[in-house]
Amino acid sequence: MALKDILAERPVRRAGIETAVASLKDKFGDRVVTGEDVRRAHAHSTTYIPNQMPDAVFFAETEEEVQALVLICGENDTPIVPFGTGSSLEGHINAPQGGISIDLSRMDKVLAVNAEDLDCTVEPGITREALNAHLRDTGLFFPIDPGANASLGGMAATRASGTNAVRYGTMRDNVISLTAVMADGRIIRTARRAKKTSAGYDLTRLLVGSEGTLGIITKLNLRLYGIPEAILSGVCSFPSVRDACDTVIETIQSGIPVARIELLDAQSMEAANAYAGLDLEARPSLFLEFHGSPASVAEQAETFGAIAREHGGGEIRASQKTEERAKLWKARHDMYWASMTLRPGARAIATDVCVPLSRLADCIGETQEDIAANGLVGPIIGHVGDGNFHVTLLLDVADPREIDAAEAFMARLAERAVAMDGTCTGEHGVGQGKRGYLRRELGDAVDVMRSIKLALDPHNILNPGKIFASE
Amino acid sequence: MALKDILAERPVRRAGIETAVASLKDKFGDRVVTGEDVRRAHAHSTTYIPNQMPDAVFFAETEEEVQALVLICGENDTPIVPFGTGSSLEGHINAPQGGISIDLSRMDKVLAVNAEDLDCTVEPGITREALNAHLRDTGLFFPIDPGANASLGGMAATRASGTNAVRYGTMRDNVISLTAVMADGRIIRTARRAKKTSAGYDLTRLLVGSEGTLGIITKLNLRLYGIPEAILSGVCSFPSVRDACDTVIETIQSGIPVARIELLDAQSMEAANAYAGLDLEARPSLFLEFHGSPASVAEQAETFGAIAREHGGGEIRASQKTEERAKLWKARHDMYWASMTLRPGARAIATDVCVPLSRLADCIGETQEDIAANGLVGPIIGHVGDGNFHVTLLLDVADPREIDAAEAFMARLAERAVAMDGTCTGEHGVGQGKRGYLRRELGDAVDVMRSIKLALDPHNILNPGKIFASE
Repeated sequence: MALKDILAERPVRRAGIETAVASLKDKFGDRVVTGEDVRRAHAHSTTYIPNQMPDAVFFAETEEEVQALVLICGENDTPIVPFGTGSSLEGHINAPQGGISIDLSRMDKVLAVNAEDLDCTVEPGITREALNAHLRDTGLFFPIDPGANASLGGMAATRASGTNAVRYGTMRDNVISLTAVMADGRIIRTARRAKKTSAGYDLTRLLVGSEGTLGIITKLNLRLYGIPEAILSGVCSFPSVRDACDTVIETIQSGIPVARIELLDAQSMEAANAYAGLDLEARPSLFLEFHGSPASVAEQAETFGAIAREHGGGEIRASQKTEERAKLWKARHDMYWASMTLRPGARAIATDVCVPLSRLADCIGETQEDIAANGLVGPIIGHVGDGNFHVTLLLDVADPREIDAAEAFMARLAERAVAMDGTCTGEHGVGQGKRGYLRRELGDAVDVMRSIKLALDPHNILNPGKIFASE
Repeated sequence: MALKDILAERPVRRAGIETAVASLKDKFGDRVVTGEDVRRAHAHSTTYIPNQMPDAVFFAETEEEVQALVLICGENDTPIVPFGTGSSLEGHINAPQGGISIDLSRMDKVLAVNAEDLDCTVEPGITREALNAHLRDTGLFFPIDPGANASLGGMAATRASGTNAVRYGTMRDNVISLTAVMADGRIIRTARRAKKTSAGYDLTRLLVGSEGTLGIITKLNLRLYGIPEAILSGVCSFPSVRDACDTVIETIQSGIPVARIELLDAQSMEAANAYAGLDLEARPSLFLEFHGSPASVAEQAETFGAIAREHGGGEIRASQKTEERAKLWKARHDMYWASMTLRPGARAIATDVCVPLSRLADCIGETQEDIAANGLVGPIIGHVGDGNFHVTLLLDVADPREIDAAEAFMARLAERAVAMDGTCTGEHGVGQGKRGYLRRELGDAVDVMRSIKLALDPHNILNPGKIFASE
């Protein structure tokens, strides 16, 4: 959605906000903060959309407090914007209609680890790194890794995924059940702890990806996995992006249970070398990881190697050593920062699309041509096993012409992905930024989504101004 | 839900049905059938709930015809009951308020196979066996296997799973997107063909498992998998159900990607031996299958064997030969029929629950005691890798005392599963039979489901009398 449209949106006057803030202050004292610094920080996002501050920030500590907040805001027609760590990428935490940002970072407990059942129950504010640190002694881990050290509640709300979704799935697949406070203050638990169920509508999956617009997540029951006996990581470079993509297609098709298969284009490799002090070839490359028994990872790597060679792939630089693996994946995870070396002083704006695997090389190829034709700087990285890739545009956000050019590019990218039967967002979510593309992608299904929103939050107090465009 | 409550439900008078049937006959001629045999056949279910016939059966051939039916029924307040193959187990296809059964079996085309993307698009009436026959030359297969040769539309509608869900997931995980005709006649497509998406609410997962109450599925885009290079099947017997369950827990925990791991209790083994002419030990046994490369399946079987031996498991009788494997799995799939040998002349009524894996041995143990204490005949089989098991009660359905005893047993079983943080149905669905357990399991979440139903089908024309109890 174009910035000018976002800024031109009819400001909704919410007369009750002042009353709500006063009630909350009465009830929760100094955990309701109205200072500008805190409010601004809670609407700080890595987009070019201006900071739209809430009227207050409430630091919740219990589910009952979340419920109390929702009831007070409901009585006073006051918007609520759930906040985890603020690492979302499409303006999800902005407060375009004001209201209360509910900071859930203090609700960060691990409530239960059920090792025999390979699941755990956590509060929404815990981050994925904190969860995995907690789990370390159990031999289990939670795989979903969107790069940022996001909160689990936020990851569920945006249906996050990341590097190893190709093997372990996304948040959609790894949330067993949720507890949430709905707009009317009801607390619901969407499912029980059984691994599968056919008992009624799948409210778990409805809330996962609802971006805080249907309920506020207060507990999550998550799937865990045994830490693999052996992990092998490697890098393999290719003559072209198409060769790399063809290798990915065959790898997936041959059933190799690759745990990570990430594309970095030549420009990204340059940036990674410069930023992380690597000495890899500045050619399109796949970063890989295999999980399994020692025999299995060796077999996987060998099968992959044979496929890669058929497509001009070089030798795989592989390692099972924890330190070398960590260095490699740190370089991948730091790509956001590394990209900035390509245009010092610029702001990095990440966008994502996802297409059927067979169209990936076309989509990336056309996008690279588009970037070049429009004089943009935009390295491409991708969770290519899922057909998902990101362009990180390096922009001078103070220059309106650059913003216009970037927006036009992102609109073409979304359109290109949708035309290839893909989606305008594989993992970042809609937020404010992608609302304008949703109808083109999903047609009347958007109206069905709206009907559900209206049925469950008739006064639109939960994260208003997200997902749905004011059409 | 007790039979007497089902039968006592306030009959809803639907004045418009006659008009709807006349309109449909005008439009579709002899594809609208009102003869009693056809109507009875379309409400024939393997439950003890009496046959509740529709007023007519419409054999649809295109999506546009489904839409036309929905519009005509909408105008005339006429219920619509979607019908695939009639293999559901909880009365889903009964027409307690009359109306039109829409038979989708003629909409059975494979519309596209996208081999590079490992997906296909099909019409809802195709059966899983027909789909896999169609796919044979591609080297791909669709794994979900609920036993019956069900239709894919029906499998999606009931969120079916079955023997190999432990590895490949359920219909929840394997439907990429759906096209459906909603209650107001709108045709929506819930998602595009990308492997993952964060574009708005997950309407795919909302429709999967909605049992025809939210929309009529007209197309499905499904995930496919490469046929494994090697498949190894085997049987391993144990001193007790608990030993078998402990083996399952360790197998899953150790990350062996077992493709099937099915429990048959001693009584089921007796029945299987008698019915299928096998000579297996009549002790609790696990039927197993491993998929992968030749080296990988050997490694998996070996690791499993070591775990099994620690729990008193016998030698694994294993085979990679197609014929022997087929014989073994046919015996497993025929358990419904085999069970009947345990009480000749009786009707077999299958019920299912699903619990966290750690509670499986307790749940099965208590259930076996319950069966014995109440003089019932009920062999137990289970998709135990998922914590899911079935009791097949052998009943004289003409004897009200037996029905009462069976209902009381099933209520205790559902209660037991829910008390162990499990679900009253792992894969059969709610239908008519399990409506009474839903609130105990999910509390106020049921009201949220009702709100969604009301928002999307305000006149309750889509499969009324299913999922929700008239509380």
